[in-house]
Amino acid sequence: MRTLCHDLTTTTPGAAVTLEGWVHRRRELARVTFLVLRDRSGLAQVVLPAGAAVPPEETTVRVTGTATASAQAPGGVEVTEAVVELLTEPASTPPAELWRPALDVSLPTLLDHAPVLWRHPAQRARWELAAASLRGFRATLDALDFTEVTTPKFVESATESGANVFAVDYFGRPAYLAQSPQFYKQQLVGVFERVYEVGPVFRAEPHDTVRHLAEYRSLDVELGFIRDHRDVLAVLRDVLAGMLAAVADEESAVARTGARLPVVPEEIPVVHFAEALELVGAPADEPDLAPEHERALGAWALAEHGSDFLAVEGYPLLKRPFYTHPWTGGILSADTRQSEAMAPTESSNSFDLLFRGVELVTGGQRLHRPSDYDRAIRARGEDPRTYDAYLQAFRHGMPPHGGFAIGLERWVGRLVEAANIREVTLFPRDLHRLAP
Amino acid sequence: MRTLCHDLTTTTPGAAVTLEGWVHRRRELARVTFLVLRDRSGLAQVVLPAGAAVPPEETTVRVTGTATASAQAPGGVEVTEAVVELLTEPASTPPAELWRPALDVSLPTLLDHAPVLWRHPAQRARWELAAASLRGFRATLDALDFTEVTTPKFVESATESGANVFAVDYFGRPAYLAQSPQFYKQQLVGVFERVYEVGPVFRAEPHDTVRHLAEYRSLDVELGFIRDHRDVLAVLRDVLAGMLAAVADEESAVARTGARLPVVPEEIPVVHFAEALELVGAPADEPDLAPEHERALGAWALAEHGSDFLAVEGYPLLKRPFYTHPWTGGILSADTRQSEAMAPTESSNSFDLLFRGVELVTGGQRLHRPSDYDRAIRARGEDPRTYDAYLQAFRHGMPPHGGFAIGLERWVGRLVEAANIREVTLFPRDLHRLAP
Repeated sequence: MRTLCHDLTTTTPGAAVTLEGWVHRRRELARVTFLVLRDRSGLAQVVLPAGAAVPPEETTVRVTGTATASAQAPGGVEVTEAVVELLTEPASTPPAELWRPALDVSLPTLLDHAPVLWRHPAQRARWELAAASLRGFRATLDALDFTEVTTPKFVESATESGANVFAVDYFGRPAYLAQSPQFYKQQLVGVFERVYEVGPVFRAEPHDTVRHLAEYRSLDVELGFIRDHRDVLAVLRDVLAGMLAAVADEESAVARTGARLPVVPEEIPVVHFAEALELVGAPADEPDLAPEHERALGAWALAEHGSDFLAVEGYPLLKRPFYTHPWTGGILSADTRQSEAMAPTESSNSFDLLFRGVELVTGGQRLHRPSDYDRAIRARGEDPRTYDAYLQAFRHGMPPHGGFAIGLERWVGRLVEAANIREVTLFPRDLHRLAP
Repeated sequence: MRTLCHDLTTTTPGAAVTLEGWVHRRRELARVTFLVLRDRSGLAQVVLPAGAAVPPEETTVRVTGTATASAQAPGGVEVTEAVVELLTEPASTPPAELWRPALDVSLPTLLDHAPVLWRHPAQRARWELAAASLRGFRATLDALDFTEVTTPKFVESATESGANVFAVDYFGRPAYLAQSPQFYKQQLVGVFERVYEVGPVFRAEPHDTVRHLAEYRSLDVELGFIRDHRDVLAVLRDVLAGMLAAVADEESAVARTGARLPVVPEEIPVVHFAEALELVGAPADEPDLAPEHERALGAWALAEHGSDFLAVEGYPLLKRPFYTHPWTGGILSADTRQSEAMAPTESSNSFDLLFRGVELVTGGQRLHRPSDYDRAIRARGEDPRTYDAYLQAFRHGMPPHGGFAIGLERWVGRLVEAANIREVTLFPRDLHRLAP
């Protein structure tokens, strides 16, 4: 029966124990040799005679011995009278010393040696927060009566956004990798009303930035029978709170990353896009928020509302995908409504959510009437027949609906304040990288 | 405040209610018109005056009225004094009458009109069982201290199995879509010890069968510090029990599919491959089990052990992937061990799990010593350098480990005894189909 390192601390002193794990560190002192063992639960100290042969770091071993109280040992219990048995061949020297408190390596080293360097307790903790986030995401939505779905990653045409798609040879004919489950999650609102999907999305992003990947995990949500995008935002608020509650439960991982966890306000503050432009001193006819605008808005939300989160609603319709629902009212103040640039027809029931001044989520209400689709697609100079498979659901009765998508890696990156999204992605894929 | 159809049954008669959903059925009688409303929770009966205009079936509507006890209404409560408001334009005639108890359509019709025909309560129930299965899968593994991971779907080479991979134009150079997360989940055992992933896998299957898809959901599990494949099988047993418990909780969906739920025995019966060949009367030198052998073994397990599940262990090593661990003992009886064909070196610590006579799961113990990989790869006439990124983890210390993969669609297909795997896949992808 194996004892985990973490459980050694509550083992009765004198008990015979068997531990299994990696040689985290060897320390050879004059009178004694220490082997620090690492497993998924933590570390344990193993005491061996001076001069004992200890396998190289990262070798997997089985240690049998006696649990012994020791004021010096981490957790107060160590293993003495230990026998160390190799579970594999002696390990090669790791690309960095994993036993040091911080993993101080360059980004290329981290990525080239990902299978080994993710073992560092502080690095591994970052993914543990990602896994907790997924758990919190699903638990929140399951409690709200959402159904998990899976949608195809092979799609027939590159119609959704047109740009930046990957082409596949699909049994001799062209196919594309889905850039998002958007069209499918909408169709499935027609079946289940409330759906979510966690899956890979593929973006042939030709630019090399600290926040883009060619493949990332999208946490997609879509729900029917809403009044407008504010109902979507309310679900997003609960989802973020649920994700953070699950993250907070991972106390050890949070401590190892040093993450400062945000608090999700009962209501996330919302500003209209036109107000946002005013707040940052941008011209009223700017069609989008630049990264420096987002940063300024993040600072404003923190100062004004004490919130790490800020929703910007009412983005210009023409900057959003064709399925975006036009503006129907919301909180737009009378003053703003009068401004020329903000004629309601130009605005939309869509939002971005900024987290610490970076766009984290895009969402909003979608069109649901077939005639609206027809008009919106024609207005972009396209032929509705191209979208026939998608529009089938709408011709057969769809409710008012909307949704959002959260990028998992971007979420974790902001949570632990990583400089580059690749640092929080297990095996990132980008313009240059396909391995490991 | 919206009342769900299911909750109408517990609404105080006389209360004002608002329901939203789809027009499931219109029934115009001489003295009264019924509108049956459908939402995610079920159906509700709405009473309207004779001759009232009722929108076509599948139109989404809001109904306001009064909850009224009625012995004739399903659930004992119906909506009277109702006002019906359209939420979209009147729906086109559906491709089948969704209000009929059974959805009696051909497979091509089902697939061509998937976004609409999945709305049928009996069809939708099939996916509800899939979603419950995912929930049970994760809950079981979370409780066993597994970490959810995500692994890249873009891979650099087609080395894992060689055949049936999809090629992608990856920023001007070739890449492939992952056929399984096998290599990555193993590497991540080196980080987290116990991992799982639910994700799409891509198989360029050139054959058109009732049980193959070009894209399906693989439920992948891998764990370290095992003794042999029997430890893997024990986790698989718990996972299946957890999936079935979650399915059983979906009483309404189970009833709508008519599924007969199996019971997972405390220990799944196991036979060695050589014994399996004997049981079905196949020659002792057969290298694999044919579908008719699997069916016969399924019948045998039911008759002999009262079990819908049967594990076959000890498959010939040469029929398994190169990373498969050779046979190390297990239950092989002395008699079988003596047979020429079953020299221990030819057998492996791998298994298939048959569910109702069909292969559902493949799993086993993997190699973990770097020198074993070197030997196994060379034995297949390949160069270990081709696998350099993968082998990095092994050179730096890996524990004895193993795992398995369950095909979600195949699981649900067997559960509801569907004739074709496409019937239980939301939007199947195969040799011929890329839409909807």
